[in-house]
Amino acid sequence: MWLNHYCPTILNLVNKQVVFDLGSTKESIVNVANAHSNKGRFVPTHPMWGTEFSGPTAAQTDAFIDKATVICNKSQVDPDALEIIEQMYVQLGMHILYMDAIKHDIHVAYISHISHITSFALANTVLEKEKESDAIFELASGGFESTVRLAKSNAEMWVPIFMQNKENVLDVLNEHISQLRKFKASLEKENPDYLLELIQNANKIKRILK
Amino acid sequence: MWLNHYCPTILNLVNKQVVFDLGSTKESIVNVANAHSNKGRFVPTHPMWGTEFSGPTAAQTDAFIDKATVICNKSQVDPDALEIIEQMYVQLGMHILYMDAIKHDIHVAYISHISHITSFALANTVLEKEKESDAIFELASGGFESTVRLAKSNAEMWVPIFMQNKENVLDVLNEHISQLRKFKASLEKENPDYLLELIQNANKIKRILK
Repeated sequence: MWLNHYCPTILNLVNKQVVFDLGSTKESIVNVANAHSNKGRFVPTHPMWGTEFSGPTAAQTDAFIDKATVICNKSQVDPDALEIIEQMYVQLGMHILYMDAIKHDIHVAYISHISHITSFALANTVLEKEKESDAIFELASGGFESTVRLAKSNAEMWVPIFMQNKENVLDVLNEHISQLRKFKASLEKENPDYLLELIQNANKIKRILK
Repeated sequence: MWLNHYCPTILNLVNKQVVFDLGSTKESIVNVANAHSNKGRFVPTHPMWGTEFSGPTAAQTDAFIDKATVICNKSQVDPDALEIIEQMYVQLGMHILYMDAIKHDIHVAYISHISHITSFALANTVLEKEKESDAIFELASGGFESTVRLAKSNAEMWVPIFMQNKENVLDVLNEHISQLRKFKASLEKENPDYLLELIQNANKIKRILK
């Protein structure tokens, strides 16, 4: 949010310099930049890598190699500014995807933001109901750790992301709650065939993720 | 379920032999075994390790080292039978937790079963709404993969687990849906303070999981 706020101030100072951002939502910052006469110097980007840890101590060597990075609204950007940023990402070993900012925000709601919300909510579920935290500590194996890992993510970072992408996140969240209700119904009605169907459908994710 | 079904038939054949199981729910099999005169030869266990893959090709060397295994209702088991199974797990490098079968089933609902349901439901959410599967494939980074990994898990294995642990799983699932609704409310009401509070609460999972 502070980036949207300061973006015009920064672009006021620019002549030939290039300004780029790396935030997790793109529509609002693109709208702010597009209203500025120096919009051609601004490159909206989003490198798709991160962990649940924040700050300089969370850095990892070669983190970005073979990862994707998104550059939005390429046609609005001056060719020389675009090339500098493209070269920077290529040097880091990333491959570049070009995408409309609005589409970007829809996709990240699915492949990043909802994962964080389910993980936060799962941690709250367990913390609320499972009072014997020794049992969690001793019994929790890889499955639990992997679904709840993102719940360690930085709160101050994620609040503005969810707020800025509110409409898309709500859309996905509503669908997710309705999918969970199907599991609930299959158990309440003791319908193993329906439960099997739900799980077999989920298994289709194998086609997409190795 | 077939195990519960065949358990009495197997125990009928037993003299000094030891029978043990490794299933993910314990109350129902313990009840079945306890009704049999050879119940002292039956050791209900649950080694806490697995991946989303099944069958012999999913084996991993040293998989069980430093992992926990549960032995239920120890006092019902003949001391010599118990010792054989304990020694087997110790040889595998596991540490043993003794637990009441009913308590075991509650704990695994929290630290294993709900993680699988959220992961299956998350996969179904994305498969339902995100039609551009190329975008998932290209954009999905570690966060999505880790929350959705368990959605590849074997459907035939998980249906009877959820069915047998129906009451506990429903209890946790209801809580989880209500936690997700809090996130929904914070976005709908555009209340960043409430959202921050929800995420900061989830961050407390750090105390339990390193």
